[in-house]
Amino acid sequence: MAGLIISPRARIFQGHDWVYGTEVRKVFGNPQPGDVVALKDFKDRFLGSAMFNPHSQIVARRFSRRKQELDGDFFSRRISQALELRSRFLPGETLARVVWSESDGLPGLIVDRYADYLVVQTLTLAMERRLHIILNVLEDLLSPRGIIVRNDSPMLAAEGIEPSVSIARGAEPEPFTARSGDIQFMINLQTGQKTGLYLDQLDNYAAVARLAPGRRVLDCFCNQGGFALACARAGAAEVTAVDVSQEAMDAVERNARLNGVSVRGVTDNAFDFLKKEAALVRDGGAHKWDLIILDPPSFTRNKKSVHDAMRGYKEIHLRAMKLLAPGGILSTFCCSHHAGTGLFRESILEAAIDAPATLRLIQQHGQRPDHPVLLNIPETEYLKGFTYELLPGR
Amino acid sequence: MAGLIISPRARIFQGHDWVYGTEVRKVFGNPQPGDVVALKDFKDRFLGSAMFNPHSQIVARRFSRRKQELDGDFFSRRISQALELRSRFLPGETLARVVWSESDGLPGLIVDRYADYLVVQTLTLAMERRLHIILNVLEDLLSPRGIIVRNDSPMLAAEGIEPSVSIARGAEPEPFTARSGDIQFMINLQTGQKTGLYLDQLDNYAAVARLAPGRRVLDCFCNQGGFALACARAGAAEVTAVDVSQEAMDAVERNARLNGVSVRGVTDNAFDFLKKEAALVRDGGAHKWDLIILDPPSFTRNKKSVHDAMRGYKEIHLRAMKLLAPGGILSTFCCSHHAGTGLFRESILEAAIDAPATLRLIQQHGQRPDHPVLLNIPETEYLKGFTYELLPGR
Repeated sequence: MAGLIISPRARIFQGHDWVYGTEVRKVFGNPQPGDVVALKDFKDRFLGSAMFNPHSQIVARRFSRRKQELDGDFFSRRISQALELRSRFLPGETLARVVWSESDGLPGLIVDRYADYLVVQTLTLAMERRLHIILNVLEDLLSPRGIIVRNDSPMLAAEGIEPSVSIARGAEPEPFTARSGDIQFMINLQTGQKTGLYLDQLDNYAAVARLAPGRRVLDCFCNQGGFALACARAGAAEVTAVDVSQEAMDAVERNARLNGVSVRGVTDNAFDFLKKEAALVRDGGAHKWDLIILDPPSFTRNKKSVHDAMRGYKEIHLRAMKLLAPGGILSTFCCSHHAGTGLFRESILEAAIDAPATLRLIQQHGQRPDHPVLLNIPETEYLKGFTYELLPGR
Repeated sequence: MAGLIISPRARIFQGHDWVYGTEVRKVFGNPQPGDVVALKDFKDRFLGSAMFNPHSQIVARRFSRRKQELDGDFFSRRISQALELRSRFLPGETLARVVWSESDGLPGLIVDRYADYLVVQTLTLAMERRLHIILNVLEDLLSPRGIIVRNDSPMLAAEGIEPSVSIARGAEPEPFTARSGDIQFMINLQTGQKTGLYLDQLDNYAAVARLAPGRRVLDCFCNQGGFALACARAGAAEVTAVDVSQEAMDAVERNARLNGVSVRGVTDNAFDFLKKEAALVRDGGAHKWDLIILDPPSFTRNKKSVHDAMRGYKEIHLRAMKLLAPGGILSTFCCSHHAGTGLFRESILEAAIDAPATLRLIQQHGQRPDHPVLLNIPETEYLKGFTYELLPGR
């Protein structure tokens, strides 16, 4: 079997499953891109089986500490384990990420379930090469009405995979509605569309909505309106949702009608909107809010821009705090792995110092259990959120 | 009004409420120990009202950013706010910390409710001096059958308070039973007794017990058996509880009878017990466990001993991992502020590297909402826990 000798002090000796090009001491047996290779340390001790791709920065991704092929049996076993995890922690949920890459022992494979349909992504060459095996296993285990392969991630270029979106099994579905918890969403899986639903946030919508009854709620960076809809359903006094994308605001309007709730939609940049609101409040033309939700897209995609990103987070936190009524609640989320929990929390504290206000933690939020975090692979942890109560005068 | 001029770069300018002796530039107006003082910056700007005690390392604790006396109105307002928080997040709970010091804007005052009785601690001189006002307010607001003042904390010496335990209102209660969630506990508030119940963990008992059905459970450092009892009630296949204290094990036995469940008790040091079990497993004389809980007392009380403490945590984590059956669950807690979340998680990862095993996060645990965390005062955050699933061979 072909394989790689790994340099000492590589991250694989710290429990990680990735091998970077710079961590390879020697390649033996002429492995081809997409092959399964053996990983060994410099004393020829076996470290596990990995997917190989010399064109990627991450040249090998271990998927087992044992000798293991990527065959139908393997996919069947790992995908079954992934499904079992979801049925344990999200029983009855039909909107879920049922396979999540490294976290499910299937590096580069993502499978999302939207009711009767599956959307598959292969982000590593080894997975892409074995797509037909994977599709057969998914059909066997889940009997979906259709499977869409949506390989349009910008990450694919690094693996040398051509982007493509296609209906792999069944027919292209018409838009349909699906329910998660107390909310219905309009789902459009047509090939030209972005799905636009953030499955990792679905539990957090419900968690924040529990605090909404009787409150004036502002949902910034609302996307399709998950938080806004959940708060309105939970009995918020009023709900305003803001997003810079007109497409997102159209989806909010459709989803509000679907759920029989009223949400005021504002198509605007959230930073600008908060600034204008502050001016209105100063002039007596607007009230402060009782609950403000901030769920922005990632302000940073790499380590280099983290510093700038943190200034952005601090700024948006401060603007939100200044618009909160006494006893108001701030619920804020960060979906960038690079802006870690500590840094993110600091950006909230810095805003609190300037406000000035004392903040009491109500709840810390994380990823839904269909996006499991591995202790050994820090990159699997990216979504964190905090819900704080502002204690002005304290 | 007497007060303190605070040096620039003191932590109060970073949002904190404490002033250390080294952070005082000038004392004016001759304040006496236990007095309320004004805090000001070097430009004479008012920073808030604080409790003063020159004999403590922390010479001032701010309790308001406004001018504020420590009078009956103040205590009534702050204690009412504290009660309101509990009734929002722990409705109907009769075992709870109803006032928690800085987190409730009452530095040095702790009030625990055990059904119809209250246990009060005053850990700052200013609070101790105003105990009679506080007791009156508590009687007004909660009408307890009795109030015990339990000033026996080793922290009191730093404030110059004489230790004492007394029945301040009502009569000394006989031992009684009280319920939290699904479990009953025997409560003994008699003056010679340690209460021994950890209120901050009560929610975590229930969270871990949800994973217990059908599993062989080992509860290490079990104290009065909270985790063991909850797991047994939830339908664990069998439960063993280990604690070095015979007194604790007697309590476990009483509580098991009270709850009608069976728990095997072992009076032993948990480190030693795990070592002996490993030997038994090797010799075929014992099975591995499906769920191991580690809830040790703090391995460190200060910054200096953190390094040693982390070795202890790694060691106990490794011993536990080696005794887990495939797919087994490790639920581990750390109650020291000094061993922060990051360090604690590293100690688990280091053990996982040695095991070797990949760990998937099931749940992150924190303090119950009756021990609220303030963003501005990191010291209010001390209890963290992680429940991981071991993925051997991955």
